Amino acid sequence: MSRTEGRNGRHWIGFDLGGTKMFCAAFDGAMRMRAALRQATSAEDGTAGLDQIETMIRAVMRKAGLGRRELGGIGIGTPGPLDLDRGVLLFAPNLGWRNVPLRRRLETALGCPVVVANDVDAGTYGEYVSGAARGARTAVGIFPGTGIGGACVYEGRLLRGRRRSCMEIGHMKLLPRGPLCGCGRRGCLEAMASRLAIAAAAAAAAYRGEAPVLRKLVGTDVARIRSRALAESVRRGDTVVERIVRRAARHIGLAAANVVNLLAPDIIVLGGGLVEAMPKLFVEEVRDVAEREAMDAFRGTFRVVAAKLGDQATVLGAAALARAEARLA
Amino acid sequence: MSRTEGRNGRHWIGFDLGGTKMFCAAFDGAMRMRAALRQATSAEDGTAGLDQIETMIRAVMRKAGLGRRELGGIGIGTPGPLDLDRGVLLFAPNLGWRNVPLRRRLETALGCPVVVANDVDAGTYGEYVSGAARGARTAVGIFPGTGIGGACVYEGRLLRGRRRSCMEIGHMKLLPRGPLCGCGRRGCLEAMASRLAIAAAAAAAAYRGEAPVLRKLVGTDVARIRSRALAESVRRGDTVVERIVRRAARHIGLAAANVVNLLAPDIIVLGGGLVEAMPKLFVEEVRDVAEREAMDAFRGTFRVVAAKLGDQATVLGAAALARAEARLA
Repeated sequence: MSRTEGRNGRHWIGFDLGGTKMFCAAFDGAMRMRAALRQATSAEDGTAGLDQIETMIRAVMRKAGLGRRELGGIGIGTPGPLDLDRGVLLFAPNLGWRNVPLRRRLETALGCPVVVANDVDAGTYGEYVSGAARGARTAVGIFPGTGIGGACVYEGRLLRGRRRSCMEIGHMKLLPRGPLCGCGRRGCLEAMASRLAIAAAAAAAAYRGEAPVLRKLVGTDVARIRSRALAESVRRGDTVVERIVRRAARHIGLAAANVVNLLAPDIIVLGGGLVEAMPKLFVEEVRDVAEREAMDAFRGTFRVVAAKLGDQATVLGAAALARAEARLA
Repeated sequence: MSRTEGRNGRHWIGFDLGGTKMFCAAFDGAMRMRAALRQATSAEDGTAGLDQIETMIRAVMRKAGLGRRELGGIGIGTPGPLDLDRGVLLFAPNLGWRNVPLRRRLETALGCPVVVANDVDAGTYGEYVSGAARGARTAVGIFPGTGIGGACVYEGRLLRGRRRSCMEIGHMKLLPRGPLCGCGRRGCLEAMASRLAIAAAAAAAAYRGEAPVLRKLVGTDVARIRSRALAESVRRGDTVVERIVRRAARHIGLAAANVVNLLAPDIIVLGGGLVEAMPKLFVEEVRDVAEREAMDAFRGTFRVVAAKLGDQATVLGAAALARAEARLA
């Protein structure tokens, strides 16, 4: 992991394939961003999606002045379930795409190796390579959003399952008869602490008249209660919303304590839009609960910090994964 | 991991340093046991303990006909908290020993590398090397006893913390206001599902007259309610004890589901005296709950099995860890 490519060495493309937007960037061998492009994800099916992705990558290459021979590889991070070995996006929930052969198509079209990764895996790896978790022996990433994603970089490499991503911290069962989760079970962390769970509780509070700022800002529609509105509501005095968010953060802290007991990380990186909007609150609560609930032997052995790279973490991490894979090959 | 030593190659000592007994064995390069010795752990302090350990190792070497030059290394598994890097047993709770420099003392005395490991780590590694988890990509071991130990062999190596063992599955918080645990917190898995927790509930049942077989066998003293008595009580019709044991196993299944979601193991190995006494019951209940409570994506991707090596797992695993370390050196 210590070798770095020179300025004139190979370059790497990172691609963040999200449910609503795409973000593509080119990096040099030292992982400095050379060019980037963002677009809404507009394709109606996987085939059109592949066309859009390929077109964006070519545009970023042109923008960075890169020829094919300078391209070392491409990394793609995406939230849908993946077949990591075959590089296939099995399903993209927000988009309705199914069985999209990302690797095969892009390797053929662009003539370089393509690595496909879970977006939280890529984001956590990005934070490990050049963000908040740099140099950690064991780094755990927790990214609350619509769900709650997790990842772990252990001794320089992402922990993963045989064919798919793992570290599904969002489905850790914390409350046996807790609220119903999107997975069909009860009491999962994300049923209590995702942005969606927070938004739902905040919407109810707004409806009851307990969150006047939030109600004025965005109303009571959970689809409109995004991270910034929640942060603004807390900042401007909706104390009930603050209590809802802090309670969610404390549930994340409990899950973090369990992960500390299992994996003994040096560092826990909290990321995603919700944490970006309220980093101090989340870091405080998660740290407090994790330190108290983890075993005494682990006290003082880990730090809880906010991610540093924002939405660049995934593209950077995906590009760095392509670089790491090429080094192993 | 594929290279094997020939019959005339180096040999390895495995040592299981328990709170009540010690077990020492010599293995050839293919991990076949050549000689073994068991003794009660009688030493009153760490210094006397080191003498006893060294004397036992020398006796096993004589028994196996091994000279110093044939000895590749020694592995020691023990339940107490360890400084893995320095090879120091920080504290042995049942024995009262403190800061025992196992590695330094034995390396000096016996002139070969010494590796110190948590006993459940060693046992799970043993099952991975030549027991129930052979060939697994990711193997998780769960060993309910006085507490509940866990371990994970990931791509051929034990997951560990920076200086100490991890995978403390016994302290996973499963019930926010659950029973008090020995660690001072509430609702930890081992407060609900360890042999001690089971024995306590069974003792109360016996006292209430609901477990006549158990009461007749061993009475109501938790210190006397060991695994075999529990198994015998279940076998001979104490249905309340059976319910207590099954409920404990189901809690282990819930913790196992959380571990499946995090680490996506191929195999979960259940071991220890309690599981040995009732393997079918434990495997059934843990499998049932783990399959239902883990995410759908992991269904069918893992097996739940009973350990195969019994109390040989720790000595064998410890010896194999010494062998693995020597190969890396």
